[in-house]
Amino acid sequence: MGIVIKNALAVLPQGAEDVIKETSIYIEKDRIAAVGDAPEGFVADKVIDGKDKLVIPGLINCHTHSYMSFMRNVADDLSFMDWLFGTIDPIEQQMTDEDTYWGAKLAIIEMMKSGTTCFNDMQMNIRQTTRAVKESGMRAVICRGLVGSGNDEAGQTRLRQAYEERDAAKDCDRLTFRLGPHAPYTCDEEFLQIVAAEAKREHMGIHVHLSESVSEIEQIQEKYGCTPIALAERSGIFDVPAIAAHCVQVTDEDIDILVRKGVSVVTNPASNMKLGNGFAPIGKMLEKGVNVCLGTDGAASNNCLNMFHELSLLTLIHKGTGRTPQCVSAREGFRIATINGARALGLEQEIGSIEAGKKADLAILDLNTPSLTPRNNLLAGLSYSANGSEVDTVIINGQITMEHRRILTMDEQLVYRKIQGIIERMGLDKKQYS
Amino acid sequence: MGIVIKNALAVLPQGAEDVIKETSIYIEKDRIAAVGDAPEGFVADKVIDGKDKLVIPGLINCHTHSYMSFMRNVADDLSFMDWLFGTIDPIEQQMTDEDTYWGAKLAIIEMMKSGTTCFNDMQMNIRQTTRAVKESGMRAVICRGLVGSGNDEAGQTRLRQAYEERDAAKDCDRLTFRLGPHAPYTCDEEFLQIVAAEAKREHMGIHVHLSESVSEIEQIQEKYGCTPIALAERSGIFDVPAIAAHCVQVTDEDIDILVRKGVSVVTNPASNMKLGNGFAPIGKMLEKGVNVCLGTDGAASNNCLNMFHELSLLTLIHKGTGRTPQCVSAREGFRIATINGARALGLEQEIGSIEAGKKADLAILDLNTPSLTPRNNLLAGLSYSANGSEVDTVIINGQITMEHRRILTMDEQLVYRKIQGIIERMGLDKKQYS
Repeated sequence: MGIVIKNALAVLPQGAEDVIKETSIYIEKDRIAAVGDAPEGFVADKVIDGKDKLVIPGLINCHTHSYMSFMRNVADDLSFMDWLFGTIDPIEQQMTDEDTYWGAKLAIIEMMKSGTTCFNDMQMNIRQTTRAVKESGMRAVICRGLVGSGNDEAGQTRLRQAYEERDAAKDCDRLTFRLGPHAPYTCDEEFLQIVAAEAKREHMGIHVHLSESVSEIEQIQEKYGCTPIALAERSGIFDVPAIAAHCVQVTDEDIDILVRKGVSVVTNPASNMKLGNGFAPIGKMLEKGVNVCLGTDGAASNNCLNMFHELSLLTLIHKGTGRTPQCVSAREGFRIATINGARALGLEQEIGSIEAGKKADLAILDLNTPSLTPRNNLLAGLSYSANGSEVDTVIINGQITMEHRRILTMDEQLVYRKIQGIIERMGLDKKQYS
Repeated sequence: MGIVIKNALAVLPQGAEDVIKETSIYIEKDRIAAVGDAPEGFVADKVIDGKDKLVIPGLINCHTHSYMSFMRNVADDLSFMDWLFGTIDPIEQQMTDEDTYWGAKLAIIEMMKSGTTCFNDMQMNIRQTTRAVKESGMRAVICRGLVGSGNDEAGQTRLRQAYEERDAAKDCDRLTFRLGPHAPYTCDEEFLQIVAAEAKREHMGIHVHLSESVSEIEQIQEKYGCTPIALAERSGIFDVPAIAAHCVQVTDEDIDILVRKGVSVVTNPASNMKLGNGFAPIGKMLEKGVNVCLGTDGAASNNCLNMFHELSLLTLIHKGTGRTPQCVSAREGFRIATINGARALGLEQEIGSIEAGKKADLAILDLNTPSLTPRNNLLAGLSYSANGSEVDTVIINGQITMEHRRILTMDEQLVYRKIQGIIERMGLDKKQYS
């Protein structure tokens, strides 16, 4: 299948910068065959008119829990520990396989409709998410959430399941797998060490929550006499490619560890504000050279999975906290939401920018919209004025998964009905504010 | 013309709270005739099926500069005074009447498409904005921006123009007028006193920028030995109904003045962060009883006029600054974006909630969208997960101005072309990041 996007504006990398140029993009099978002139012998099965369009690399959501989308707006205006242990955990106890599956589908629809083409997911029931990803055409990194104490049997079983699912998905090149030790307050040090050794042996990356809330810092300090990031380092989980979500409550020494160990930090501004955890010191991390990427976290704590919303928060809030209008420019923000995410996931040779040879993961935006009018400094527009609804068409792995805002790979209305059914079964629809 | 919205979910006031109920809404001419059962003799010329829909009172944008929408994304990542005097002012010198007109039109399209049905505007060329408002079907409060020094002729001329435009618009009941002394750093104390006396005599309200940046505080402190809010009080501009935009850098004594004088504060979170001015102490103002309302500011400093975006910022950032996940709940946020705005504008008997007898200013949202699925705690959904693109239909003053996302009162594509023409004429399109 050959697809050409003719004469569109596109965000293209130029050294360490992005530029916006009018060009054509040629896609053969799953990859970008050329940017500019047609490659020799190119046959277009599909021509997309680029007039009044802006093509961007698909956004990369580096931290979410897709199944949680059915828990959108069920637990608001609560503190972090009340939210997690008082509300979310009891709901999770009632979850079935099908709930996870439909939750993942809703998440994928929301992400696709707002220009995300790859997400990094952490959860327990990875079989159902893998199934949803395969069917939807989405790209994902699936991280088996791990909770454990020492060498207990439960932890070992979870690790075995992680490998089984990874091996069963070998036929789908849109899927990669990591291990997801949940957090230092749910995994003890010995278990973290075991996971680190497993990851090393299996050549898998790590995805972990670190230093999210003040109470986490206090707990870990009391138990181990160090910060969660220092504990993570000494357990060995930073000896493999690691992604640390949140990193809100961090010391300068913590940042030095992250730099030294090449850990990528996923910042989740909406979730961190909403749960009252505060603002991660992103300006300082960027200065010191941390690879910062961006994530929405789950819909239970955000409550949306719209990376344009997250990008606007990222590029606004740090200007406010430090009274520094230059902090996290639109230009930096866009890289954080794309190529930095690819780098965090070990996929920077494959995705994250529009370049010949890379996978064709693209979002095509309609410029005939108020938020992108006038067409001046469109990189600023992507951060500060776009809301995600400008995304008209999405291509993932060379497949058109959404066209003119219609999802081609899933039945949207069926998913909405299924999700409504879940919350009605659980009685969560009765918890209206009224 | 009789319109009925049949069997929709709707946000309805119940005492000091909002509740969501399934109901029908009957509209006769410009007003809501009934909520619930049909009024006697009601004839429906138009029936809107409320299945899978949520009806909300139109959002009220209490501080913007509509003409500036053509300056979207022209001046980013700059400090406040560099932004205003270094970039925006020189562009304003080149502006024509038509630029103001088309800028206002773009602003109105953007607001309408994201569910705003009334805006409070401050600017110099009010004739062109008045023209755009009249044509578009939008509701607005138009405030003649005033800059002056003592009893100078320029200030007097501007006041005369304000009255002329007000008098010329008497035929349009969607328009009201206020005086808009720009700020204490552009109006001296004597001029503020003159404006206060004029407003009192003419029975007009005031709309003023106050305590936005640290440099403003320093300037006013040095010149007058007090805060901008204390200066405003002693000049008399708080002796008429007053709306103060920003109020970021305020002392406890300032807040006491605002409460004592019944001043409404418009908070503009995006603009305040983007220009590096910081976060207004909204939690404290709400506790002390200030009538807080919400505004986007102009597109040159936001850079969008989407009140859903602003509402999400309002309900997120104060949870982050104080690490207080309860601060500005979704429920409070929605009132701030609706009825509090109506109160600030002196229109609380007319707009801001869905009640029989009030003007029919409504937005109808599509619930078959990922961001509003599941239908659980939809008030939380409006703050935390909606992005504005869920708005399907808009009714203002009983007129359907947008239907299924198509603006019925303006030619959208023409407006986009005109705006692009302005920035090309001014050479602003050449200022791409690339």
